[in-house]
Amino acid sequence: MQFPSKLIENAVAEIAKLPGIGKKTALRLALHLLKEDGQETSLLTDALARMRSETVYCKQCHNISDADLCQICDNPLRDGSSICVVEDTRDVMAVENTAQYHGQYHILGGVISPMDGIGPGELNIESLINRAKSADGLKEIILALSPTMEGDTTAFYITKKLKDLDIKLSTIARGVPVGGELEYTDEITLGRSILSRTKYEV
Amino acid sequence: MQFPSKLIENAVAEIAKLPGIGKKTALRLALHLLKEDGQETSLLTDALARMRSETVYCKQCHNISDADLCQICDNPLRDGSSICVVEDTRDVMAVENTAQYHGQYHILGGVISPMDGIGPGELNIESLINRAKSADGLKEIILALSPTMEGDTTAFYITKKLKDLDIKLSTIARGVPVGGELEYTDEITLGRSILSRTKYEV
Repeated sequence: MQFPSKLIENAVAEIAKLPGIGKKTALRLALHLLKEDGQETSLLTDALARMRSETVYCKQCHNISDADLCQICDNPLRDGSSICVVEDTRDVMAVENTAQYHGQYHILGGVISPMDGIGPGELNIESLINRAKSADGLKEIILALSPTMEGDTTAFYITKKLKDLDIKLSTIARGVPVGGELEYTDEITLGRSILSRTKYEV
Repeated sequence: MQFPSKLIENAVAEIAKLPGIGKKTALRLALHLLKEDGQETSLLTDALARMRSETVYCKQCHNISDADLCQICDNPLRDGSSICVVEDTRDVMAVENTAQYHGQYHILGGVISPMDGIGPGELNIESLINRAKSADGLKEIILALSPTMEGDTTAFYITKKLKDLDIKLSTIARGVPVGGELEYTDEITLGRSILSRTKYEV
């Protein structure tokens, strides 16, 4: 691509580093910013710079946060008797959007994946164990990890570490998705959904 | 969406203002920047801020430029006998990528579109006419506008304004695209390609 200006070329190169954005999209975004009022660009760059420099990780659950303790850990109305263990921030947002869970969270920051060089030491597992040992009134730890090889390995590792504590360990249900068709469900999922069948409350 | 931090919420809102980027993609990009080294974010924000504040419009062709005269207008090797009139910067890049044109450009900044409130006064047409009248050795003006209603209207307006000058006016060929199938070509395009048929040079 022949750019009319080195400054645009540089901006396009930086935008195209973002995941899922190619050179053509980057150019479209750069030209959009040039067309808009200059204030739009400064609002964007300020928001990005502040987000990057001012967000910290919650010292209790390791979620991204504005302060030492995140909004959830700092909320006295949240149920302290359960911790939901998830892979990353997006999973917290997904669970929060269901409005079905009112306890606390623990963000691992990934799952065990030897292929990518991620062992238990790279994740926030040690702090989860310490939290489980020291937390007052903690009754249940829910593992809400992806049903993949890596997610299952991580769940297995955590349950082994925690099994001697007097805390109920559970995992989110595996089964046929709501709205899913039985005939298109893979056999492992369908098999699990039969094994974990739920009794009708009539 | 429930955001873990006001700073992320703000950044996502700003990113999602960009064309073609929704809230979910914006969140993915924001979390990517948080995961990467802090320097990545500052490289991006610096590149955007510099691009927005330091680029200017070339005073001759109105293309985006680093200096008063753009790289093309300032290049003595470019052929000064022809001006290619295009809608915007992306069209200049598209024509440059063909490596078939070595003359100069004139960027209109849009096309006449009464629906969007864009008349001839909003475009760089006046400066094109002045340029055509005063330029030394100018022999041809090529209109390379999109073959839409608005593009054709703009071309018609410009040709009317320039027809009394002793300059050849031309438009890029309309026809079947290279690699296109005849049977899938619309009748207007196919009709024009027959009217503008080219003699074999044998």
